[in-house]
Amino acid sequence: MANDILKYLKEKKYISGEVLARILGISRVAVWKQIQKLKNMGYKITSDQNLGYCLVSRPDLLLPQEIQRGLSTEYIGKEIDYFPELKSTNTTAKEKALYKAERIDEGKLIIAERQSAGKGRLGREWFSPAGGIWLSIILYPQLFPSYISRITLTTAVALVQAIKACTQIESQIKWPNDVLINEKKVCGILTEMSTELDMINWVVIGIGINANINICDFPEDIQKNSTSLKETSGKEVSRVKLLQTFLKEFEKYYEKLKKKEFSSILKECKFFSHTLGKKIRVDIGEKIIKGEAIDINESGALILKKEDGESIEIISGTILK
Amino acid sequence: MANDILKYLKEKKYISGEVLARILGISRVAVWKQIQKLKNMGYKITSDQNLGYCLVSRPDLLLPQEIQRGLSTEYIGKEIDYFPELKSTNTTAKEKALYKAERIDEGKLIIAERQSAGKGRLGREWFSPAGGIWLSIILYPQLFPSYISRITLTTAVALVQAIKACTQIESQIKWPNDVLINEKKVCGILTEMSTELDMINWVVIGIGINANINICDFPEDIQKNSTSLKETSGKEVSRVKLLQTFLKEFEKYYEKLKKKEFSSILKECKFFSHTLGKKIRVDIGEKIIKGEAIDINESGALILKKEDGESIEIISGTILK
Repeated sequence: MANDILKYLKEKKYISGEVLARILGISRVAVWKQIQKLKNMGYKITSDQNLGYCLVSRPDLLLPQEIQRGLSTEYIGKEIDYFPELKSTNTTAKEKALYKAERIDEGKLIIAERQSAGKGRLGREWFSPAGGIWLSIILYPQLFPSYISRITLTTAVALVQAIKACTQIESQIKWPNDVLINEKKVCGILTEMSTELDMINWVVIGIGINANINICDFPEDIQKNSTSLKETSGKEVSRVKLLQTFLKEFEKYYEKLKKKEFSSILKECKFFSHTLGKKIRVDIGEKIIKGEAIDINESGALILKKEDGESIEIISGTILK
Repeated sequence: MANDILKYLKEKKYISGEVLARILGISRVAVWKQIQKLKNMGYKITSDQNLGYCLVSRPDLLLPQEIQRGLSTEYIGKEIDYFPELKSTNTTAKEKALYKAERIDEGKLIIAERQSAGKGRLGREWFSPAGGIWLSIILYPQLFPSYISRITLTTAVALVQAIKACTQIESQIKWPNDVLINEKKVCGILTEMSTELDMINWVVIGIGINANINICDFPEDIQKNSTSLKETSGKEVSRVKLLQTFLKEFEKYYEKLKKKEFSSILKECKFFSHTLGKKIRVDIGEKIIKGEAIDINESGALILKKEDGESIEIISGTILK
C-alpha cells in the first residue's frame, strides 16, 4: 500500500489525502498512516492543507521499491530482502539458499545498508559501512561446480561495465575477484556455492562496492589499498542507479554463462584485466608462485609463466604486492 | 542417566534397583523411570524381585550409546544426532553445517533409521528403509574444493575395508561414488560441500549402506541392480559393528587425506576398482563419452582412453550399463 501511494506521489507534484483514499479504496486515516510509514523510511513528504501531500525527496537507501522502480531485468532483483544492517549478506543468503524447497527464486537479492561482519575471500574482513553497496545474489545455475571462477569473473565484468556506464570511471579486474581503480580496491566479490560432485545446488555471489564512502573512514590498514567511487569522482554516485545498472549488466552476462558462452565474457575480462602482463607473486595457500601472468583460460584460471619457462594454471589465489 | 544404567546392566547379569540407585545417587523411582525409557528404546530388560534387573537384549538400532560404546575413533562420531526417521540425513546435516558458528564439531554424525526422501547423486532417489545404515558426516577440512572427488573415493575405500572386515565380503568401487558386490549396488556416497573459490566451508558426506534389507523389498526398477549385505551373506550383519568399523577406517583415511597423502588411498582405490580396465560409456551431463577406463589420477578423476586413442580426464559422471 505504501508503494502504491509512493507511485502517485511521484507522478504528481501534489496529491490530496482525499484523492489518494478514493483511488486506493481506503480511509483517509489509512492514507495518513502509510504516509507516516514512508516518512519513517526516510522519504521527505510535506503536506499542505489545500494542495495535499508532496514528495520532496527520497531517501538515499537501497529500498526494494527504489531499486525495482525502473529496473529492466527479467529476473535478477525481482525479489529483494532488504535490511538496514546484517552481519553479512552472504550468510543470510546462504541460509535462504539452503531452503530451495521453499521456492527461493533465481536472482533473489539480499541487501544491507551496512554489514557488521562483512567477509572477503578466505574469511578476511570486509569493511562495510553505510554508503557502500552490500548485496548477495542467489542463483541456481545448471552448471558444473568448476564454473565458480567463471561466475566470479562474469560478475567482475558486469561491475566494471556498470561503473563505467554510471560514473565514466574506468576500473580494472584484479584476478580472481576484485575490481580496482588506480591500483586500489573498489569492489570485491565473494562467490560461495553448495555442490555435489558434478552439480551446483546453489550459488551465492556476495558483492561489495565502495560507493559513497570517504577514504578517511576506512580502517588505517586498508586505507592505502582502498578507494571508493565517491573518492575517485569527487561526488556522490546514485547507489540505486548504479545497482540497477549492475543488475542489468549482470543478468546479460549471466545469461551467456548459463548457455556456456564464456568466450565473449572472457574477452572482456582480459580487456579489463589488471593482472595480465604483470610479473606477480601468487599465494596459492600451500606456497607462493612467481611468474608472469600471461593468460586467463576458458575455465577462468590464471596462466602463469614461471621463471623457468614453464606455464602453470592457477585456479585461485591471492596476488601479493 | 539412562546411559549410566545401561553401562551397569551390561556389566552385570543382574543388578538391583537398590544398588543402581545407590551407585548413581538417585531414587529407586528414578531408576525405574530410566529403565522404562530404555525399554521404550527397544532394550529388553526383565526384572526379578530377588535378583534385580537383567538386560536380555539390545535393540537393533543405531542409537548413539550403542555406536559410541567401544568406538575407537578420535573424533569421528563423538557427536551423533540420531533420528528414527528423516527426509534425508544430508539435508539435516547441511542445515547443521551451515551454523559452524555454533561450533558443530568436525566428525559429527547425523543418523536415521530410515529416510523418507533419501537422495543419491544428481537428485536421484535413494531407497532407504529400516535395516539399512543411513548417515551423514559433517567435516571442515582445510582442503581445496577440488578435493571433492578424493573425499568421495576415500569414503568408498573405507566402506570396502569395513565391509570386508565385518562380513568377509569383497566389494568393489564403481567410480565415482558407489560400492558394488557382484555388479550390484550395496553402498552409495553423496558428497556435498559449501565452498569459496579456493576454500571449503564445510563438507557433508552422505553414506547409504544396504545392510539388512531383503532384496524383495527393493522397488522393482532397482531390484536387479541392487543388493544388500544380508542378501549376499545370507545372514543379518551387526549394523552397529559395521558402522563402528567404517568410522574407524574412515578416520584413518581421512587423516591421510587432510595431510594431502592421497597416493596410498588412491592405490587402494584402484585395487578395489570395478571400473578400471573396462570399456564403458560415461554420461557427463552434456554428452556421453565412450572409451576404456585406464586410470584414476591424483585428483580422483577417471582417465578414459577414447576410441580415437585420445585420453581424457573426467571429473565426474555416470557410468552407463
